[in-house]
Amino acid sequence: MKVISSIKALNNYILSLKKTKKTIGFIATTGALHEGDFSNIIKSKKECDITIVSIFINPSQLFKNEDINLYLNALSCDKKNLKALKIDILFLPKEDSIFPKNYNTYINSHNLSNILCGITRPAYFENFATTMCKLCNIVSPNIIYCSEKEYQKYIILKSMVKDLNLNISIKKTKTVRDTLGIALNSKNALLSSREMLDAPIIYKSLKMAKEYFNEGYNLSEDIINFMKDILCQAVTLKVDYISIVDSETLSELQTATKHSYIFIACYCGKNRLTDNISLK
Amino acid sequence: MKVISSIKALNNYILSLKKTKKTIGFIATTGALHEGDFSNIIKSKKECDITIVSIFINPSQLFKNEDINLYLNALSCDKKNLKALKIDILFLPKEDSIFPKNYNTYINSHNLSNILCGITRPAYFENFATTMCKLCNIVSPNIIYCSEKEYQKYIILKSMVKDLNLNISIKKTKTVRDTLGIALNSKNALLSSREMLDAPIIYKSLKMAKEYFNEGYNLSEDIINFMKDILCQAVTLKVDYISIVDSETLSELQTATKHSYIFIACYCGKNRLTDNISLK
Repeated sequence: MKVISSIKALNNYILSLKKTKKTIGFIATTGALHEGDFSNIIKSKKECDITIVSIFINPSQLFKNEDINLYLNALSCDKKNLKALKIDILFLPKEDSIFPKNYNTYINSHNLSNILCGITRPAYFENFATTMCKLCNIVSPNIIYCSEKEYQKYIILKSMVKDLNLNISIKKTKTVRDTLGIALNSKNALLSSREMLDAPIIYKSLKMAKEYFNEGYNLSEDIINFMKDILCQAVTLKVDYISIVDSETLSELQTATKHSYIFIACYCGKNRLTDNISLK
Repeated sequence: MKVISSIKALNNYILSLKKTKKTIGFIATTGALHEGDFSNIIKSKKECDITIVSIFINPSQLFKNEDINLYLNALSCDKKNLKALKIDILFLPKEDSIFPKNYNTYINSHNLSNILCGITRPAYFENFATTMCKLCNIVSPNIIYCSEKEYQKYIILKSMVKDLNLNISIKKTKTVRDTLGIALNSKNALLSSREMLDAPIIYKSLKMAKEYFNEGYNLSEDIINFMKDILCQAVTLKVDYISIVDSETLSELQTATKHSYIFIACYCGKNRLTDNISLK
């Protein structure tokens, strides 16, 4: 595994790869890696000649009271894990090489970034899309792997790549969960033992909502109230939003269909957890 | 000269060029071409193996009462001129292939697009940067030629290419003027004979302001008032704005320096004319 920090050095390496027609799989992460990231890496190693992983986080991507040290402290452990997985390149750019002084250009996904999780986190998806556009141009991947857990990011990325005529395919991978059903996320490590008892109820409510839908109940309002009744039993959970949306446009639906997703964000103590389920 | 309308067909052609390491020079236009465009094309033909010209305009790029037919009606004449100049490819995409239904992703050049001409035309530079980002990805040029006449566009493009890590060099070329000194622009054809008498005073005021600066007067307010005194003699001219800015950041300056540009936009009858001068 090569560790590369300089954009220029990575560019030169990528140019030499492109000459040999090697295909590149790319997994963009913020660090504090978990089984969900590893599963994307294993998929890329199967499907592509070269697998590149980036670890990059800038403070504006963090949520309110979130601590960047969660990610920074994990770096040596992340490196060990990536080495064991035999990835080809770990791209580890410095913040000021990605967003230098006088940085000016931002990517806005008009109708996709100001909804769902974008309501609570207004600049978050602009920051995400901008960083991803830059990483796409630096890494020139053939395939980017993106977990279904981050479905709004997946749709923004898919839309950006198509809209800006980038010749990259975006592959959605299955959400990896722990034995209790909690969708894996770096921030799960911050849950208290009490919160760990409640967190699985988020996914339980999604699964039960899907069963409810399959029984013939398709009004979004009914499905959401059905979920809220389940979630209110958990003391440490506070629903931020539940929304039923079209799987492509992410626009909110009054009536759910097989092509819908249910999105949920819950505060679990101080932590904000998100999850989703396809109704297909 | 090949005329290509399909993005996919152009992509395939570009891929074959890249294999032979041919360098690509690119001139993006909105059509109704003039000597300023031709001069960029001749430069590209000298410096690059392949010269590609695009003609693309979408209605949101037009100013208020501006008529798109000015550009559309010029197409057969443009084609003849480009053929005579022996360019390699004319890229002529349809509007709905560049901005299809459900298009979502826009490029915003935060501090560069909402100033100078961006004040009167708020969405114009977002539209320009987005179109140029798409054309950069489709055409993959080595060099883009951009006239100094469009200095704000030049700076936005230079900043976008650097910020988004596109491996393209942006070359600024000298503004081409008619014998009276009017900066060439497709819209000059719409000037009445009375307006044609006044329009040269715009550049005259810029040249005299530069002389005034060289005599030691460097307060922006003084220079601007000096220009306004010259311009008010022309009956059909109405100043939209005059601004003295830093040549890199485009931020407004109270005191002009050798690294400043003077920007001017004037209404000449119904037409809005722009021009600029470097104080170097």
